[in-house]
Amino acid sequence: MALIVQKYGGTSVANTDRIKNVAARVAKYHAQGDKVVVVVSAMSGVTDNLIKLAKEIMPLPSEREMDMLLATGEQQTIALTAIALHTLGVPAVSMTGAQAGIVTDGIHTKAKIHNITPKQVHEKLDAGNVVIVAGFQGETSDGQITTLGRGGSDLTAIALAAAIKADLCQIYTDVDGVYTTDPRIVPTAKKLQEISYEEMLELASLGAKVMQSRSVEFAMKFGVVFEVRSSLNDNPGTIVKEETKSMEGVVVRGVALDKNQSKITIIGVPDKPGMAASLFKTLGDANVNVDMIVQNISHGSNPPTTDISFTLDKADLLKSRKVLDGVKKTIGFRELTSSETSAKLSIVGVGMKNHTGVAGKLFQALAKEGVNIDMISTSEIKISVVIDLAKGEAAMKAVHAAFIG
Amino acid sequence: MALIVQKYGGTSVANTDRIKNVAARVAKYHAQGDKVVVVVSAMSGVTDNLIKLAKEIMPLPSEREMDMLLATGEQQTIALTAIALHTLGVPAVSMTGAQAGIVTDGIHTKAKIHNITPKQVHEKLDAGNVVIVAGFQGETSDGQITTLGRGGSDLTAIALAAAIKADLCQIYTDVDGVYTTDPRIVPTAKKLQEISYEEMLELASLGAKVMQSRSVEFAMKFGVVFEVRSSLNDNPGTIVKEETKSMEGVVVRGVALDKNQSKITIIGVPDKPGMAASLFKTLGDANVNVDMIVQNISHGSNPPTTDISFTLDKADLLKSRKVLDGVKKTIGFRELTSSETSAKLSIVGVGMKNHTGVAGKLFQALAKEGVNIDMISTSEIKISVVIDLAKGEAAMKAVHAAFIG
Repeated sequence: MALIVQKYGGTSVANTDRIKNVAARVAKYHAQGDKVVVVVSAMSGVTDNLIKLAKEIMPLPSEREMDMLLATGEQQTIALTAIALHTLGVPAVSMTGAQAGIVTDGIHTKAKIHNITPKQVHEKLDAGNVVIVAGFQGETSDGQITTLGRGGSDLTAIALAAAIKADLCQIYTDVDGVYTTDPRIVPTAKKLQEISYEEMLELASLGAKVMQSRSVEFAMKFGVVFEVRSSLNDNPGTIVKEETKSMEGVVVRGVALDKNQSKITIIGVPDKPGMAASLFKTLGDANVNVDMIVQNISHGSNPPTTDISFTLDKADLLKSRKVLDGVKKTIGFRELTSSETSAKLSIVGVGMKNHTGVAGKLFQALAKEGVNIDMISTSEIKISVVIDLAKGEAAMKAVHAAFIG
Repeated sequence: MALIVQKYGGTSVANTDRIKNVAARVAKYHAQGDKVVVVVSAMSGVTDNLIKLAKEIMPLPSEREMDMLLATGEQQTIALTAIALHTLGVPAVSMTGAQAGIVTDGIHTKAKIHNITPKQVHEKLDAGNVVIVAGFQGETSDGQITTLGRGGSDLTAIALAAAIKADLCQIYTDVDGVYTTDPRIVPTAKKLQEISYEEMLELASLGAKVMQSRSVEFAMKFGVVFEVRSSLNDNPGTIVKEETKSMEGVVVRGVALDKNQSKITIIGVPDKPGMAASLFKTLGDANVNVDMIVQNISHGSNPPTTDISFTLDKADLLKSRKVLDGVKKTIGFRELTSSETSAKLSIVGVGMKNHTGVAGKLFQALAKEGVNIDMISTSEIKISVVIDLAKGEAAMKAVHAAFIG
């Protein structure tokens, strides 16, 4: 007899057979007396097809109109899911984001949720219905349809769970939960029973793309405990929640490898104030997201110069080289080298805060495997190293074996 | 400098190229200073595809959920149409039925419009925008999405024209206007410059399916003058409006042929009160729509009996025979015969009210063509005859030639 929010993504509702599967799962919870709110995405392919239609007309269509257009995808899924529950004899009512009381700001295509007044949701739940809410969308206070951007349906589920004070929020996806590392590369990877918000955030930002960071951040902010689990089986998933004392016993919760890194080194930058700022402002103006930055101590003299290395997404490498070449003269650096064969390996765990020797153990594991370290960056619960892409997977296995098994 | 409502149906917005054509036409009116409200249907095929998905899940899906599902079709078109106007530099804003203030009753899939409060429409028009409204849909006073049923987008356009007191309401379709008869059969058919609501209603109900009767009835009730015209060219169409004195000079406005008729004759019905009532209640209970009814004078005696003939839609013939066979004993009639080879020919014109000899001229024209008349029915502005289907088109040509040319 719990109040549960369940979220199903686009692949889980990709066709009418899968929608029927979702309905069967929801019906089981309903039969055991739970009150269930279901959040669904657009059927996979629907959103892409709508975007294609709009771009046939105009390469950069109005964001307001894109929201009007794309919100229809989820609206279709909620109706079909309600119908699928009806065939099972389960009373069910669909609601758009607006009907569910999800009020957002007016930033079209990436709106933020302002507040939720789930009056209708409560009414329909109390009357014995399953309530099916369109993910990814809301409405401004003056009635404009908005969408929440990437990962928006997860956000809808977590925000609704907070608003209705759900006992449980389940994010159904095509993986079994959160693993200690990528099980496709490391067969000994273990599914985690639980993980803290902070660890989940680090893993998400490191390329373990189970969920978008903003949904995890929202859950952390409002203390929403949620479970990531598979829509293909009945296995328990991974619980994501506030860090607990017991979690700190585990030093490394997960090992992540980001193969999408590239590295730029700028050689011979005049070692005077404002040079780094100029470089990274240039990149920021070009919308390049820089990840790790390392500046070596200065050498030479007359004038003294330094080398600056940084990593960035591989997709941004060409653009970055181009804009930096443009400022070579004004900044006055000597040379620019880059590499597309870098990977970033990271270990994450809240237990690091109270354990010493973690970095040493990491470097030792890498050394034993003959992996050279290019760059190092650390935070309270994470250590990242940039290494040769070719050795990435071997390094990942070795580090996983050293810390987890 | 007029306030214009334009409605474009599903074939006019079937793909992005056609949507661009619609935008180009709208832009012309906007450029000459008109304020334009555009009502669009779903792109042709979209609604059928959504119905197919729903029926894959359940043969008779909930009507509330069908409204939730189908309303997305028009919502997609309004966004794409707005984007197409933006490419032409025309400011345009899309609105769902709810946003345009269209409030309906709660009868899902065939809701009736209660009232329209087009506050947002006026605001956006006054700010210089073209306003694009989703046809076919509205919202109940407590925020449930509804659809208006067949011909709903025409109804949206006419109701909006009434609500905003438009100077002009244009219904764009794939025909040039309303013709004196079907130009595919009678090459001398003429496009009408104008026609009265009553005549249009008779022609619509007679199978000249330019528009659904309910939209014409709504226009008549609220005095909305509208024009039926083609979205494929710039020819003026047909103006539909209140009957005027000048219209009465024309005896016959149009000639219509309904080939979808069948006829049932019930022979030897006991000639006593209540027999006809029993017969037609039986058919009514089976949802059969009976059109013309003729009862001959009674003959024979002990007991005296009569024959009753009536016409009905061909699709209902089998069902009707079956239910009537079921009551043969209780009603006590002798025999039932039926024919699927009937057609109904009708002439319509408000001028009939003041002209004599119209029926005679009709019968003469038919006689000259060797056409036998099975049944006759008349109203103030219409005369219908049931004839042999095989002679239907020849009869239509002869009657058109006699009255119109």
